[in-house]
Amino acid sequence: MDPFDGTPLAGLLDRITPPDPEAERQARHRQDRLTKPAGALGRLEPLSVRLAGLAGTCPPPGPAPVAVAVFAADHGVHAQGVTPWPQEVTAQMVANIATGGAVVNAFARQVGADVTVVDVGVATDLPPAAARPAVEIVHARVRAGTADMTEGPAMSREEAVRAIGAGAAVADDLLDGGHRLLVTGDMGIANTTASAALVAAFCGVEPAQATGRGTGVDDTTYARKIDVVRRALARHEPDPADPIGVLAAVGGLEHAALAGYLLAAAARRVPVLLDGAIAGSAALVAAALAPSVVTGCVAGHRSAEAGHAAALRHLGLAPLLDLDLRLGEGTGALLAVPLVQAAARTLTEVATFDSAAVSEKD
Amino acid sequence: MDPFDGTPLAGLLDRITPPDPEAERQARHRQDRLTKPAGALGRLEPLSVRLAGLAGTCPPPGPAPVAVAVFAADHGVHAQGVTPWPQEVTAQMVANIATGGAVVNAFARQVGADVTVVDVGVATDLPPAAARPAVEIVHARVRAGTADMTEGPAMSREEAVRAIGAGAAVADDLLDGGHRLLVTGDMGIANTTASAALVAAFCGVEPAQATGRGTGVDDTTYARKIDVVRRALARHEPDPADPIGVLAAVGGLEHAALAGYLLAAAARRVPVLLDGAIAGSAALVAAALAPSVVTGCVAGHRSAEAGHAAALRHLGLAPLLDLDLRLGEGTGALLAVPLVQAAARTLTEVATFDSAAVSEKD
Repeated sequence: MDPFDGTPLAGLLDRITPPDPEAERQARHRQDRLTKPAGALGRLEPLSVRLAGLAGTCPPPGPAPVAVAVFAADHGVHAQGVTPWPQEVTAQMVANIATGGAVVNAFARQVGADVTVVDVGVATDLPPAAARPAVEIVHARVRAGTADMTEGPAMSREEAVRAIGAGAAVADDLLDGGHRLLVTGDMGIANTTASAALVAAFCGVEPAQATGRGTGVDDTTYARKIDVVRRALARHEPDPADPIGVLAAVGGLEHAALAGYLLAAAARRVPVLLDGAIAGSAALVAAALAPSVVTGCVAGHRSAEAGHAAALRHLGLAPLLDLDLRLGEGTGALLAVPLVQAAARTLTEVATFDSAAVSEKD
Repeated sequence: MDPFDGTPLAGLLDRITPPDPEAERQARHRQDRLTKPAGALGRLEPLSVRLAGLAGTCPPPGPAPVAVAVFAADHGVHAQGVTPWPQEVTAQMVANIATGGAVVNAFARQVGADVTVVDVGVATDLPPAAARPAVEIVHARVRAGTADMTEGPAMSREEAVRAIGAGAAVADDLLDGGHRLLVTGDMGIANTTASAALVAAFCGVEPAQATGRGTGVDDTTYARKIDVVRRALARHEPDPADPIGVLAAVGGLEHAALAGYLLAAAARRVPVLLDGAIAGSAALVAAALAPSVVTGCVAGHRSAEAGHAAALRHLGLAPLLDLDLRLGEGTGALLAVPLVQAAARTLTEVATFDSAAVSEKD
């Protein structure tokens, strides 16, 4: 049954199709004719093949232009003392991103990506600076932060679906605007707690394995955070066969929106670069709804956050970068953009043995 | 004693100075004031600090524009059957690079780097296409390939110093032209055999540990290659305290040129991104001549080639990327360029807690 029946998302999951095998075959053949030893480009070779499969043509385009959408939301579980950062920082960072001052902005400029920041559930008013944004800001607040998952569901199922729809709409708008590589971004104080609960629920790992130190919390806070995840799971007993139910019980509004963003991109077979722990746990939701969504996902990096590695294993994705990053915002995924574009370039720009008159090995 | 006494390189080693500690202190302080949790940018934070130290100012510039120099040479040891690729491929690939068709050209376009290809010791005539280059080509052939190191020294000490000088001149020209980040590149059929011998000599590891499969040779060729390295080392007994002697005995002309390129960049405190196995073994030569050259080196990636990891350990460098690349040409290092530039950008473009009015943690 379509979990989106009766909503604007009806039929979305059915529109998700796997990569084109013929384009992938052509890409594999072309890789073997390029002026380099076969296999010498390592992980970039299968990546180039996948890009051809998603585009349905070899060589594949760009993939450019690039857009990063930073989904921002707050978390009721903040009240449990899972982080030393005040909740107002989410709204302040939305303003910082909107005015171009965050790390995500700097890295987006580095790789030529357009930034969109999406308020899908910030709890507090945005600072006045956000009214004069230097980048696109989307106001799509489903509710002012989730409820505390240790006391009840984080949100209703209907709110979860609305947040998924908000994320899908952002992806559709970016794709309608011509973007051909999407990057996930996130901002939300306490969002690694919700991510940990999602990882534990979908991957079946213990809360202690799913939970990390987020911004770098001390031992006392870390122990409390693990206990909070344990209590939330015990209370809701989320069923991974009911992804919307898991999301509503222990997820975040940005996790929901990110899942929608991935699903909408997959329906149009445009690749998405995943950032770290938040994106990884949101991808678990999307993959539970439509397993083949993973074929369009590229793991930008492995976060230092515990639980992210478990999510990547569950998804069957190997990260391109591993630089001990744990910032979020989309920063790790943005750094991987040139790697994805370079992989595509090999199929479009590199000479073959024949065209360059280079001898082959004996 | 100056090993370059009486040559145009006299005094080069004395001009190499360590990074500026005051600029590094300022960069560390600034990292801690940026709108992100302290340490959340992982390995990029110390990298940004080093860039400030090299530039002697915080925030550091660019680092841009970027140049990659591809040093090409042949190897007499090719006669021992260490690779199935014919020697003429070196000259053919020089022409392919010169006309823009190699992977290094595609990746250079991806990251906005200028390509220079340097014939420092190709054995055969360059194909006619190389006479109409699309990128800069430097003709600095010291000799037409090295001699077979299993039968005698690969080159004379005087030739090794001349090749070092050729590499230093290329770096100086690029820096005079305004480039502020240099990337190493290499091309030379059989050059992983010379690299393996250099790694074994400088790192004190066994030939079997220092030697890899290069372009992907079969078991028989691999066994022969290890034996060739073993015989060369047994014949010359190279002394790591005499780096020019090691280079002359078992090195390549491109290794010598790369060592000179690193030394000249270090003398002007411009960072150099090292590519894989060839650059790593050349850096061993440079570091043996001037240990502080390493402070200006950034390891772009870890090659799949055995021996490269040993070289990086010896140099104390951690690679930025690990993508199973084993192509050479500078390809892996070019892919790391955006990471280095992004690290610098954090110090120049990211708002502080004060400037963005973002609350700090409790």
